[in-house]
Amino acid sequence: MKFKAKILHIATRGTLIAILNKIDTEKLDLTTLDRIKIKRGNKTEVVAIDIAYGKKEVSPGQIGLFIDVADELKIKENDELEVSLEPKPQSLQYIKNKLDKKELSKTEINAIIKDLVSNRLTEIETTYFVSGCYVNKMTLDESAYLAQAIVDNGGKLSFNKKPVVGKHCIGGISGNRTTSIVIPIVAAAGLTIPKTSTRSITSPAGTADTMEVLAPVSHSKEKIIQIVNKTGACMVWGGTQDLASADDKLIKLEKTLSLDPEGFLLASILAKKSSEDCSHVLIDIPIGKEAKIKDSKKAKDLAKKFIILGDKLKMKIKVIITDGSQPIGKGIGPALEARDLLLVLQNKPAPEDLKKKSIFMAGMIFEMADIKEGIKKAQEILESGKAYKKMQEIIKAQGGNPNIQPENIKVGEYTHTIKSNKDGKVNYLSNNLVTKIAKTSGAPQDKGAGIYLHKKLNDKVKKNEPLFTIYAESKDKLNFALKENINDIIKID
Amino acid sequence: MKFKAKILHIATRGTLIAILNKIDTEKLDLTTLDRIKIKRGNKTEVVAIDIAYGKKEVSPGQIGLFIDVADELKIKENDELEVSLEPKPQSLQYIKNKLDKKELSKTEINAIIKDLVSNRLTEIETTYFVSGCYVNKMTLDESAYLAQAIVDNGGKLSFNKKPVVGKHCIGGISGNRTTSIVIPIVAAAGLTIPKTSTRSITSPAGTADTMEVLAPVSHSKEKIIQIVNKTGACMVWGGTQDLASADDKLIKLEKTLSLDPEGFLLASILAKKSSEDCSHVLIDIPIGKEAKIKDSKKAKDLAKKFIILGDKLKMKIKVIITDGSQPIGKGIGPALEARDLLLVLQNKPAPEDLKKKSIFMAGMIFEMADIKEGIKKAQEILESGKAYKKMQEIIKAQGGNPNIQPENIKVGEYTHTIKSNKDGKVNYLSNNLVTKIAKTSGAPQDKGAGIYLHKKLNDKVKKNEPLFTIYAESKDKLNFALKENINDIIKID
Repeated sequence: MKFKAKILHIATRGTLIAILNKIDTEKLDLTTLDRIKIKRGNKTEVVAIDIAYGKKEVSPGQIGLFIDVADELKIKENDELEVSLEPKPQSLQYIKNKLDKKELSKTEINAIIKDLVSNRLTEIETTYFVSGCYVNKMTLDESAYLAQAIVDNGGKLSFNKKPVVGKHCIGGISGNRTTSIVIPIVAAAGLTIPKTSTRSITSPAGTADTMEVLAPVSHSKEKIIQIVNKTGACMVWGGTQDLASADDKLIKLEKTLSLDPEGFLLASILAKKSSEDCSHVLIDIPIGKEAKIKDSKKAKDLAKKFIILGDKLKMKIKVIITDGSQPIGKGIGPALEARDLLLVLQNKPAPEDLKKKSIFMAGMIFEMADIKEGIKKAQEILESGKAYKKMQEIIKAQGGNPNIQPENIKVGEYTHTIKSNKDGKVNYLSNNLVTKIAKTSGAPQDKGAGIYLHKKLNDKVKKNEPLFTIYAESKDKLNFALKENINDIIKID
Repeated sequence: MKFKAKILHIATRGTLIAILNKIDTEKLDLTTLDRIKIKRGNKTEVVAIDIAYGKKEVSPGQIGLFIDVADELKIKENDELEVSLEPKPQSLQYIKNKLDKKELSKTEINAIIKDLVSNRLTEIETTYFVSGCYVNKMTLDESAYLAQAIVDNGGKLSFNKKPVVGKHCIGGISGNRTTSIVIPIVAAAGLTIPKTSTRSITSPAGTADTMEVLAPVSHSKEKIIQIVNKTGACMVWGGTQDLASADDKLIKLEKTLSLDPEGFLLASILAKKSSEDCSHVLIDIPIGKEAKIKDSKKAKDLAKKFIILGDKLKMKIKVIITDGSQPIGKGIGPALEARDLLLVLQNKPAPEDLKKKSIFMAGMIFEMADIKEGIKKAQEILESGKAYKKMQEIIKAQGGNPNIQPENIKVGEYTHTIKSNKDGKVNYLSNNLVTKIAKTSGAPQDKGAGIYLHKKLNDKVKKNEPLFTIYAESKDKLNFALKENINDIIKID
């Protein structure tokens, strides 16, 4: 059949979709999300169809194309296109099997992820896959196949080095900017440790947001490899390299219902690490009432699964279970966290917990890589200034100013400090409220926004001593933050 | 916050969606499918958001609106709109509960269906609901709540009569045009029997397609009520009255993966009947290898559930399990079926099985309505010509010609007859192939297209006797049909 192209000037960046008029779909016995093949010259593209009910947008005989499809096939307005019916992809049957509680094979999971990445599955169809994996759970084998499929169908960094080490934290608590300290310590010892991170969506700052205060983080895949080959490390944003792009699509759908299927969580993290070419990975699971993992039983169970799964994916995994009862460090928000971490690296007065946890983690990585007395070694590297020197190299390689000083990092000029109204001891510090109020004040988009905690859990406090300071880059945002229940962040007893 | 409207000239007829630029969504910490409230004058509308990645379609500061939303709020290009954040609907939590295997309450299911009908749930969110009900099954209580919610949140016909009777067949076999014979028989006895049908999507003709050969079937709700009040019956298309519109949305999503959750099937059918104001319903479950229900165990189980569910919905249900091993009647396709049914009603030579099944079904309805010796009564009404007279009344009330004769019904002028190549007996007749080839020949869009079966199961056949004739309205379509495996439709032994 022949149709005339009508270009719809909207990009979907998702499923490839063409729109036909209801009259045509009835004639052809097509329903929404059936597939058609569009031919233009010697290029073809399979797309799902949607139906136009009126005649104004897409008339009978026309085929409406979103700009992605039109660009792909170099189609212009009114081009005549040859359209034929195309069976639905085989992967739909596998998705149905998962809904029917059948375990999927490696080939089947790979087919689903391949179709997902090439935009051949609609979001509705993918949602059925997420549902099946959520309700019927995934076996560890399925999680391994999923991780492998995400890696095989996405971009991949590749270094000709062994070992390549990595670290990942199962998020959920603010601050915790250990990554930017652990990485220079580890790289200073000669190990390779590339780190790609997401920009934060749910917390006041991710590693990429904080690093961006010190140096650019958006680089091409080639540039990232160059940085790592030069310095042994990088701290970049992972969004531009198509690493684990299937993962991003699945996460988007999970988020709509705040689902977090464990099988996906495992696969998602290990796929990211595998696509960074890691051979050894340290996983940090903080536990705490307001952390993602609430108790040690759950944490231990998850740790076991990470290790088994790592084995299947030929990565050595070590899991540490840490205290997630309060934020790590004192600054919360990109600039405030960047200041903290530079102070630690420069061996100036700095939050002790941040320093201690970073040394511990670097030490654990050293031991995985067969470096003896890892913690002692990590402490030496940090305190000798070698880690700071390595950090300067990394900042320079990423295009930043290696001589930036903590006091030169710009923080929000609008501030408000909350003081204690009595003598006592901090017996409660709310992770969730710190996160919420730091975000309301503008973090992470406003780099200088956030919260500085003068006091932390179990600290003694005198009446009128400052408890915490809120920073914002505009008066409006500071006022927004002050409307929140700020007095509940810290409780004194 | 204020945004400038940009109208996108596409109608979605589904979820209400607005598009914001990625820069704005990051600032506002919004992700895809979060909700915003748009205010224009004193009208407000809550919509889900999607994200534009480039700046060409929707720039920062702009809000892209599909034409449905723009029309609803009377928004014009460049209007300044007040936009505020809106929490996600509570029904999302209920959907998540269903995925988590929790049984939903009446209030919860009603909230989901209410949001679905008012386009406040996205298709992705609704897909999670379908998944939950499919994987975790629905209890009969949940099916009853769902049916009730579909009725309460949709259009409803209302007659001041008791009883109002109805019939429904769990589809899957061709022909089976009993409805158009049962209804005049039942109405001729003074009972009220309104019948709304879908146009067929998967079979060569639905009741509405066939009836349309004899009279118009698209009428307003008021006109339908008028027709029923005048004649006691109607046979109309149910698509214009918003009856059970939630059902249509759920069915669309089920179809993408050919899911058919039993709880939905039950709710869907009984909601339709309840919205037709039925107090008594006869359900026909044909069983056969190529019917929807394959064996009598499954049919009996389903029958039991229909009866229990009917009780919950205050409808009296009677279920008959019938032979679905081959098509009922000889004509397949709207005009060929219309000819068959007129012949039966006029007591002229006609397919015996069609006549017999129609009398049986009408008889069962009579017995539900406390009319004694129902089958005998049905036969009397049919053979006395009273049913035909009632059919003429209905045709006239719907705006057709009541004096139309079978020989005046136009069938496709391009035909091809397959003859037997040997003496023997018909031992196989494929429902599925009859359906497929009748559709390829143009049915139901081409009213005159279809298949006429000269022979049926167990009929004796002589060599060169005709087995069946394919009808089409164009030479092309006849040729399409002839390319199918037509020699497998009937097998002789």
